[in-house]
Amino acid sequence: MTKMLNAGILGASGYTGAELIRLLDQHPHVALRALGAHSNAGQAAQAVFPHLPDDIPMLQKLEDMPLADLDVLFAGLPHGTTGNILPELLQQYPGLRIIDLSADFRLDDPNIYQEAYDAPHPAPEMLGEGIYGLSEIYADSIADARLVACPGCYCTAANLSLIPLLQNKLIQSQDIIIDAKSGTSGAGRAAKTNLLFTEVNQGLNAYSIGKHRHMWEIEQELGKAAGATLKVSFTPHLVPINRGILSTSYVHLAEGKTVNDLHIALQEFYAEAAFVRVLELEQSPKTQNVFGSNNTEIALFPDRIEGRAIILCAIDNLLKGASGQAVQNMNIMFNFPETTGLNRIALYP
Amino acid sequence: MTKMLNAGILGASGYTGAELIRLLDQHPHVALRALGAHSNAGQAAQAVFPHLPDDIPMLQKLEDMPLADLDVLFAGLPHGTTGNILPELLQQYPGLRIIDLSADFRLDDPNIYQEAYDAPHPAPEMLGEGIYGLSEIYADSIADARLVACPGCYCTAANLSLIPLLQNKLIQSQDIIIDAKSGTSGAGRAAKTNLLFTEVNQGLNAYSIGKHRHMWEIEQELGKAAGATLKVSFTPHLVPINRGILSTSYVHLAEGKTVNDLHIALQEFYAEAAFVRVLELEQSPKTQNVFGSNNTEIALFPDRIEGRAIILCAIDNLLKGASGQAVQNMNIMFNFPETTGLNRIALYP
Amino acid sequence: MTKMLNAGILGASGYTGAELIRLLDQHPHVALRALGAHSNAGQAAQAVFPHLPDDIPMLQKLEDMPLADLDVLFAGLPHGTTGNILPELLQQYPGLRIIDLSADFRLDDPNIYQEAYDAPHPAPEMLGEGIYGLSEIYADSIADARLVACPGCYCTAANLSLIPLLQNKLIQSQDIIIDAKSGTSGAGRAAKTNLLFTEVNQGLNAYSIGKHRHMWEIEQELGKAAGATLKVSFTPHLVPINRGILSTSYVHLAEGKTVNDLHIALQEFYAEAAFVRVLELEQSPKTQNVFGSNNTEIALFPDRIEGRAIILCAIDNLLKGASGQAVQNMNIMFNFPETTGLNRIALYP
Amino acid sequence: MTKMLNAGILGASGYTGAELIRLLDQHPHVALRALGAHSNAGQAAQAVFPHLPDDIPMLQKLEDMPLADLDVLFAGLPHGTTGNILPELLQQYPGLRIIDLSADFRLDDPNIYQEAYDAPHPAPEMLGEGIYGLSEIYADSIADARLVACPGCYCTAANLSLIPLLQNKLIQSQDIIIDAKSGTSGAGRAAKTNLLFTEVNQGLNAYSIGKHRHMWEIEQELGKAAGATLKVSFTPHLVPINRGILSTSYVHLAEGKTVNDLHIALQEFYAEAAFVRVLELEQSPKTQNVFGSNNTEIALFPDRIEGRAIILCAIDNLLKGASGQAVQNMNIMFNFPETTGLNRIALYP
Repeated sequence: MTKMLNAGILGASGYTGAELIRLLDQHPHVALRALGAHSNAGQAAQAVFPHLPDDIPMLQKLEDMPLADLDVLFAGLPHGTTGNILPELLQQYPGLRIIDLSADFRLDDPNIYQEAYDAPHPAPEMLGEGIYGLSEIYADSIADARLVACPGCYCTAANLSLIPLLQNKLIQSQDIIIDAKSGTSGAGRAAKTNLLFTEVNQGLNAYSIGKHRHMWEIEQELGKAAGATLKVSFTPHLVPINRGILSTSYVHLAEGKTVNDLHIALQEFYAEAAFVRVLELEQSPKTQNVFGSNNTEIALFPDRIEGRAIILCAIDNLLKGASGQAVQNMNIMFNFPETTGLNRIALYP
Repeated sequence: MTKMLNAGILGASGYTGAELIRLLDQHPHVALRALGAHSNAGQAAQAVFPHLPDDIPMLQKLEDMPLADLDVLFAGLPHGTTGNILPELLQQYPGLRIIDLSADFRLDDPNIYQEAYDAPHPAPEMLGEGIYGLSEIYADSIADARLVACPGCYCTAANLSLIPLLQNKLIQSQDIIIDAKSGTSGAGRAAKTNLLFTEVNQGLNAYSIGKHRHMWEIEQELGKAAGATLKVSFTPHLVPINRGILSTSYVHLAEGKTVNDLHIALQEFYAEAAFVRVLELEQSPKTQNVFGSNNTEIALFPDRIEGRAIILCAIDNLLKGASGQAVQNMNIMFNFPETTGLNRIALYP
Repeated sequence: MTKMLNAGILGASGYTGAELIRLLDQHPHVALRALGAHSNAGQAAQAVFPHLPDDIPMLQKLEDMPLADLDVLFAGLPHGTTGNILPELLQQYPGLRIIDLSADFRLDDPNIYQEAYDAPHPAPEMLGEGIYGLSEIYADSIADARLVACPGCYCTAANLSLIPLLQNKLIQSQDIIIDAKSGTSGAGRAAKTNLLFTEVNQGLNAYSIGKHRHMWEIEQELGKAAGATLKVSFTPHLVPINRGILSTSYVHLAEGKTVNDLHIALQEFYAEAAFVRVLELEQSPKTQNVFGSNNTEIALFPDRIEGRAIILCAIDNLLKGASGQAVQNMNIMFNFPETTGLNRIALYP
Repeated sequence: MTKMLNAGILGASGYTGAELIRLLDQHPHVALRALGAHSNAGQAAQAVFPHLPDDIPMLQKLEDMPLADLDVLFAGLPHGTTGNILPELLQQYPGLRIIDLSADFRLDDPNIYQEAYDAPHPAPEMLGEGIYGLSEIYADSIADARLVACPGCYCTAANLSLIPLLQNKLIQSQDIIIDAKSGTSGAGRAAKTNLLFTEVNQGLNAYSIGKHRHMWEIEQELGKAAGATLKVSFTPHLVPINRGILSTSYVHLAEGKTVNDLHIALQEFYAEAAFVRVLELEQSPKTQNVFGSNNTEIALFPDRIEGRAIILCAIDNLLKGASGQAVQNMNIMFNFPETTGLNRIALYP
C-alpha cells in the first residue's frame, strides 16, 4: 500500500487555498495535516469557507503548524512574504518539499523581479533555486525539486500554447501579442469595490495593460524557448465568470512555415500529456470545457493576414492555473501517476 | 480487489447524462461501457459534449448497446418513454439493475400520474415495483432493488428537509408552503427561446405555479411521512445560475413543539448521513456551498409569526438532485461505501 | 414654458444616488444643481462613477451645497444620520422640499424604530411628519408634503401587491407569508467579502430571516390597510442579478372570496396607475420585464391548497424600489405628469 | 411645435426591434405607427415581448403596414431578404426614408458581399445607393440620405476607434489586429442550443475566427480611411453578458508618431461628438459605463512592444452598435438635435 503523504497548506484562507483543500482531500495518497493562515488563525476552516466539512484541520499560525511532520507544504502566501519565509523553512526542515504558488521564485533575475513587483526581491540568493512548475515543460526537474514555483495563471495559458512553437522555431519570437481574458477568482477574495458583484456582472474591461506582473514571467519562459530575449504585448481582461482563462495569441509564422506545421508540432509535443488537449485545426476552445478540471485546451487558426496565426488556450485559472497544477507537480515529485486525485472531466454545465 | 461494475447510461446526451459520465468515469469501481442516445446515436460522446475525453464510449442506439454485459443501467430518458422501455429490459436481462432518473416509477398511483403528466401511465402494472431512490430515507430497500426511481430535484430538496419533521409529528401536515428556486440546468438542454442566455440572465421569475409535476411527488412522500394525505403549496422559481436548488418551506409547528425540538430531530435524523449537513440553528444555507458536490444543507429558523418555522434546503440539482443521488444509490445497491466516487467538497467559488 | 426645478442629492455616491443623477439628468423640468457626499466630497462625480458625463456637478460637503437655491432635495443618507440632519434643513430652508430615501421617517412608532434599527430614533418628535412615499397609495398627501419618506424596496413590492387586497377585506390579515428575492444592488456599494462577484455569482441564499428591517415597515402599512395590527413572515433572498425584486406572497382568502374577486379588485385599484400593470390571471411576472423602468408587475394565482392564493410582484429595486419612485413622488409634489422623465419601457434584454 | 414623424419598424420581433420600440416610444418627436413582423404577424407586440406596454402597435405583415403614411422606416430584416424588399419600397413610396440595420447595403462591392455572405447580392444595382450610417463619420451624407445602412456592431466599435488614426496617417494600415468581445444579444433571439443560458453562462470562447462577416465591412471602412486596400485580423469572442462590445485593437504606430499624437488626434476628432468620449491616456474603458446608453468610450495605451499602441473601444451593441445609432441617424436625417430621445447616461449598475 502506498504511504500517505503528510501535507500542509500556507495561506489556506484564499481561493487557491480552498481549492488545494478540495484537491488534497480527494487525493488518495495524501493526508491533509495542517492549514496555515494569518488573520484567521484559530478558526475552523469551515468558519472561513462554510462549504468545507468539519473534519478539515483548523487554521493555525505558521509557528504552530507541525512542519516537521510534513512531507510537502503548499505555499499560497503573498509575494514578498513568501521569499522571506520559505528559504528558512527549507533549511530548518530538511525533509520538507515546498510547492509555492506565489511569484517569488518564478523569476530568475532580481532586476526583473524589481521591475515587475516594484520591490527588491526578498531573497535574491535563492533565485534560481526553485524549479519553474510548468508541469508539461519541466517535469524532469520538478521530479527532484525541493522547491517548485508554480506559474501564474495567465502564464500557464500563454506559455503552454506558445513554448512548443518557439522551441521548434515555427513562429517568430518578436511581435507576439497575447490578449487574455480571465474570470474574477484570479483577483482573490479581498473585499474591493471594483470586484463587487454589481460592478463586475454584466460588464467587461481590460486592466493593467502593458504592466501586468505576469508579463515578465511570460517573457522569461518564452525567451528560454526561443533562445532569445523577447518582449510580448500582453493585455488581460476581466470577464464576469468565476473561473476560466482564455488566451488569444497573435503570432507571425516563421519563414516558410505553415499553420499545419504548427498544428502537427503541438499535437506531437502534447501527445503524451494527460491534461493538454490540442484541438482539431480551427476548432474553438471554451473555458466551459475545462471548468473545474485540470485540463488545457489549445487551438490553432490561420489568420486572415498572411503569414500570421492565432493560437488559443483555455484553462481553469484555479486548477491548471494554480492549485491543480500544484497538485500535478506534487504527483510528479512524489512519483504518483500525474493524474492522481485530479478531475479529468470538467463540471459541465 | 473489488470487481469492476459494468455500467451503461440511457439518454446520455442530456445534462444528467453528462454528469453521470463524469461521476462514473471517476468512480474507482465502475467501468463505463455503453452510452445510449437517440438522435445523436453514432456520434462520439465528445461531438455532443466537447468537454468529454475521447476515450468515452460512443453514443449508440438502445438496440446496439451491450446490455447483457451490464451490471447497472442508468436511465435518463423522458417520462412516458421510460415506462415503455424499462419493464422489458428488466425482464430480458435478469442480471441488470436499473437506476431510473425519469418520473415514470416515482409515483405509486396511476391516477396521480395521469393528473401530473397529463397522460396515462405507460406501464401501470409496474407501479410500485420501483423503489423510490431518496437515499437517506429508503436506503434499506434501495440496497436490494432491481429498479430504483430517483426523485425529482425539487422533491429531493423539499422532502429531505421535511420528512423527518413529519415522521416525528413535529410539524403539521396541512398548510405546508414550499417556495423553491432553481438554476436552469434543471430545464434541460433543448433549444428554447425562454432559456436563452439573454432571456434568463439578469432576471427572475416563478413558473408552473400550482401545477409543477414535482408537486404530486412531494405530496406522495410527505404524505407517507405524515401518515396522511396532504396537499402542499409549491411554487418553483427560475434563477440565473447553472446549478443549485434552494427550497424555503413555511410550516406550522405541531402543538407544543418548538423550533429547538425540530432542530434536534433533524440533527439526530441525519447524524450518520454522509451527504446531509444540518446547519446550526439560524445559520443560512447557500447553494454555493453544495455546488458541484452531492451535499445537502438543511437549516431551520423560527418564524416571526408565532407557531411557525422556516426550513431551508440547498442542493446541487444535477448532483444530489439527479446524477449524484443516482450514483449514491448505485453505491448502496452494490454495497460500496455510500460516498465512493462522489465529491464531498463543493467546487468553490 | 415650465419653470425648471433646482434639485440636489445628498448621498450621491451610492447606487441610488447614481440612479437619481441619471433620472434627474433626463428629466425635462429639472436642473441638477448640487451633489452631496461625505468621504468623496471634492471629487468630480465622474471620479466616483466613471459612467457619468463630465458636466455633472461636483461632489460637495453638505455645508457647501447651495441649499437655499434648491426647490427639492433627495436624501440618500444612511438611517440614523438622516434623522439628525433633515429636520434642521427643513427648518432652515423654508422653500425646500425633501424626498428621503432612508428609513428614518418611514415608521410612525419610535418603539418599532428602536426594534427594527436597534437604536433610538434620532428625531422622535418628527415621526409622523413625513408622508410615506408609496406613490400609488398616498399620492394625495404626497402632493402637499414637505417631507416624503420613500418606502424600502422590499416594502414597495410587498405592499403594492397586498394593500388593495387588505383594504378590500379580500384576504385575511393573519398568516401572510412573503418570500422575496432581490438583486444585489440593494445591498449597496460598500466593499464586503460576501458581496464579491465570486461569492454571489452562481449562488443563491436567504438572509436576515425573521429580522430584516423592512419587515416592520411592511407590517405597518399592511396593518393600516387591514385596519388591524398584524405580523408577517418575511424572508428575503439574494439572487445573482444586479437589479430586480420579486416578491411571492402566500395568503389566505377571506371567507367567501375567490381568486377572481382578488384579481378584479387589483385591476380596478390600479386601472389608472401609470406604473402598475396587473397581469392576466395566472400569468407570471418577470423582473426582466421591469428592468431599468419604473414599472411594477403584479400577478395572481390560485393556490393548490384550497382557500389560499399566491400574489407576485416584480419591480426594479433601484427604480420603483428607490430612485424611480422618488422621482415619481417629485412629479406628484410639483404637479408634473406622474410619468415625466421616467422610463416606461424596460431595457430588454 | 415640431411636427411628429410617423415611424415604422420592419423586423420588430428581434432584439434590435424591441430596442427600437423603446427608443422611438420615448422620442419626443416620433409617433410609432406600425410594426412589421413575419411569423408573429397578427399578434400584439406584448405577446412577443411581454415587457412592452399594451398601447404599442400590433405586429403586421409588410403588406398590411401603412407605409404610405410613414416618414421613416427602420428595417431590421435578415440580410438577403432586405436587399430584395427595400429597393421596391423606396420606389413605391417616394416620401419614405429608410434606416436599414441589415448588412445588405453596407458593402460597396458585390464580390465582397458574395465572399462575406456566401450568396450573390440581391440587388447589386443598388450598391452604393445606401449611405453608410456610422454617424460620427458620415453625418453630412446621412443628413440627405433616403437609405442609410447602419454598421454592424463590431464594425462600429472597431471603426470609430481606428478611422481617425488611419485618416491622419498616425498608424500603419497593415497588420491591424482586432480582438473583440461581445455580449450575447448580438446573436439574436433564435432558439439555439449553444446560446442557452447553461451553455453561455460561466464561459468564454472565440468564434468565427478569420471569417466573421463584419471583417469585410471593417476592412472596407478602414481602407477608405487609410486610402488603401487593407486586411485586418479580426477575432470575435462571446462573453456572458447581455449587452456590450469591447474591441481591443493592436496597431503599429506610423513612422515618427507617438501614442500622444494619437491621443490628441482622437480627442480633436471627437471634440464635438455627443456620444463619443475619448478617455484620458491609459484609462481603461468598461462596457458597464455605456450599458443602456448610446455612448462610446475610446481609450489608448502604449504597448510594451516599441512602436505599437493598443486602442480600446466600448459600446452597447444594441444601442450605438445597432438601434441607438439608427435613431441617432434618424435625428441627423430629420434635423433634430443628434441626442434627442437617446439616453446619454448608462444604466448603472
